[in-house]
Amino acid sequence: MSIITITTDFGNSIFSAILNAVILKEYPRANIQIISNNIEKFSIKNAIFYLENSYFYFPENTVHLCVVDPGVGSNRRGLIINTEKYWFVGPDNGVFSFINFNKIKSCYEIIYKPESWSYTFHGRDIFAPVAAKIAKGINVREIGKEIKWEETITSKFKFNSLREVIFIDDFGNIFLDLKYEDLKKIVGNKKFKIIFKEKVFEKLRKFYYEVEKGDLLLLVNSLDYLEIAQREGNAKNVLNAKVGDKYEIKIDESRRSYFKN
Amino acid sequence: MSIITITTDFGNSIFSAILNAVILKEYPRANIQIISNNIEKFSIKNAIFYLENSYFYFPENTVHLCVVDPGVGSNRRGLIINTEKYWFVGPDNGVFSFINFNKIKSCYEIIYKPESWSYTFHGRDIFAPVAAKIAKGINVREIGKEIKWEETITSKFKFNSLREVIFIDDFGNIFLDLKYEDLKKIVGNKKFKIIFKEKVFEKLRKFYYEVEKGDLLLLVNSLDYLEIAQREGNAKNVLNAKVGDKYEIKIDESRRSYFKN
Amino acid sequence: MSIITITTDFGNSIFSAILNAVILKEYPRANIQIISNNIEKFSIKNAIFYLENSYFYFPENTVHLCVVDPGVGSNRRGLIINTEKYWFVGPDNGVFSFINFNKIKSCYEIIYKPESWSYTFHGRDIFAPVAAKIAKGINVREIGKEIKWEETITSKFKFNSLREVIFIDDFGNIFLDLKYEDLKKIVGNKKFKIIFKEKVFEKLRKFYYEVEKGDLLLLVNSLDYLEIAQREGNAKNVLNAKVGDKYEIKIDESRRSYFKN
Repeated sequence: MSIITITTDFGNSIFSAILNAVILKEYPRANIQIISNNIEKFSIKNAIFYLENSYFYFPENTVHLCVVDPGVGSNRRGLIINTEKYWFVGPDNGVFSFINFNKIKSCYEIIYKPESWSYTFHGRDIFAPVAAKIAKGINVREIGKEIKWEETITSKFKFNSLREVIFIDDFGNIFLDLKYEDLKKIVGNKKFKIIFKEKVFEKLRKFYYEVEKGDLLLLVNSLDYLEIAQREGNAKNVLNAKVGDKYEIKIDESRRSYFKN
Repeated sequence: MSIITITTDFGNSIFSAILNAVILKEYPRANIQIISNNIEKFSIKNAIFYLENSYFYFPENTVHLCVVDPGVGSNRRGLIINTEKYWFVGPDNGVFSFINFNKIKSCYEIIYKPESWSYTFHGRDIFAPVAAKIAKGINVREIGKEIKWEETITSKFKFNSLREVIFIDDFGNIFLDLKYEDLKKIVGNKKFKIIFKEKVFEKLRKFYYEVEKGDLLLLVNSLDYLEIAQREGNAKNVLNAKVGDKYEIKIDESRRSYFKN
Repeated sequence: MSIITITTDFGNSIFSAILNAVILKEYPRANIQIISNNIEKFSIKNAIFYLENSYFYFPENTVHLCVVDPGVGSNRRGLIINTEKYWFVGPDNGVFSFINFNKIKSCYEIIYKPESWSYTFHGRDIFAPVAAKIAKGINVREIGKEIKWEETITSKFKFNSLREVIFIDDFGNIFLDLKYEDLKKIVGNKKFKIIFKEKVFEKLRKFYYEVEKGDLLLLVNSLDYLEIAQREGNAKNVLNAKVGDKYEIKIDESRRSYFKN
């Protein structure tokens, strides 16, 4: 019983119900798991955030289907990507650009064509049936033509840190577009400050209990992002923050290393 | 492992969790799929929209359970409808009136009575157990008494097009209560215009890319409805549209057919 | 195929998707059912409301996982509770305080430790894997140390009725924090009134149809709570009610019993 995950910007449940139905018609034993149907409309960046931070928790052989597809109806390519552990199915528009090139075993352009299809809902007509066929173990060459990774738009798609808020969770915790590993590369052996909305954060905390109730803090969160939070409060509301708000990193060249190693 | 779909106006998840629980207690192998738990409260019309446009994508033998039930506690009948491919379970109030009479194999009044039941939650006490029993293959005559389709309120329920907006999706695309097939019947071999909020649409598009970014268009969408959309924008916001807003069809008797055949 | 239910205050779907993924990695045949991912942030009381009113509808051996965990990162205990029919997994903070002591077979402190874990997401790192291990039938002593129920914070946690609104459903029905059984204990053989927002309710109804359309009423609802509702309307809006609003019970000592027995 293979798992298929779904990531879309459909919002309203009828469209995701239809995706699920189409999958189950093709492969009744599919175990469908929703990552999100509420990706910001047309936002490749938001889709990447959700997929990049969740795909690897799923069991091996999970098929990750993503339908955030502003180019539907144009001649953008459909992709099937096979990595060491997972399959990915969706448009060649960058939503899968987080995948580490070194882990890619093969990459296919979707050639599957249903008897009829719409101009505006390839999720239902193409991507969902393709994901179901892969989950049930079809020979991928029946529905895809192998291409080089370098040929894809996805492979050229790069999001560098724009020094902005990338996500705010429902607790009001503010995710900066910077992971801990990347921060280490940037600040090296120097002391640093993060400045957001005129608040200055000099310490990188491990958990909320390090500060007093109501205090703001900067921590490395459970998804390894730098996060600005308020203990037992809502940093988003306190700072009136929104996705896209800018922050600054200031490095103090004169002072000792923050990182011990 | 049979599929049971759920369509309700419960909104809050605790009530749908209870439906799921009751189904799984009766039939632990049920594969439960949510069509929507956010039908507009008490709206038969909205329930029909969701069911009519999604039920047929599911595999054969799927049991479609609908609990939009403004008459709960009164003596309205509960129905089990068996069509060529599907089962439907819910109140006899019109939510299943979209079913094509010619496809109905048999129709039953629910006679199943649990040991005790509430006055306000027949979804939990009657409809969900009945759906689960059907999905697991019980003889339907143990829980239903065969009746004639013509005896049902459902069979007399008709929604003609009121020339109004029937649905707006999360992209702001505006669905008119008119399918392409019905438009063809209405305009015949004449040229026509659709007028909505003083905007006049003379062309029926196939996909968003036919117009410039930001332009409004009228197209036949993936569910075969006439839809007013804005390319890469949100027509709902631009036009300040809401469900129930009226539109007009104007037929130009003097001009050539829009439809080729 | 065991069932695992999930009750959290995560809100955003990415975190619940991660919980699901972690469960499926440990136990691919788990049947995951969401009770709610929208518990009021940090609210033990709200978590209790959802769990207490839904857990018993699920089949025997269901594992109920709750991650409403304001104390994450502190040294609060993790619990596994085994009752006659169910398992419960979550923090020792009161979310399971509704469980009837007499039905508890055994109680364990979680000793399972993953290779690495975060300071802020024990749901993913500890509780979800533990729930999955129990669902797949691991010997609970490998992951838990038996403790006495009386040692737990949960056992000392008590919510008495505060005579306030505990929940409002999506129809605007107002749930008082009083179940029918408890009302009977309080009013005994006396006549009573419930006063809410200056409205006086003297009759306890069984269903909405007992009053006229648009009238307010007090009834015992399908979850056995006293509920203030408006027939075919929205009591919340009419009365401008919110969770936490107070109500009064007035007992008329001079008049005959409301309850027949």
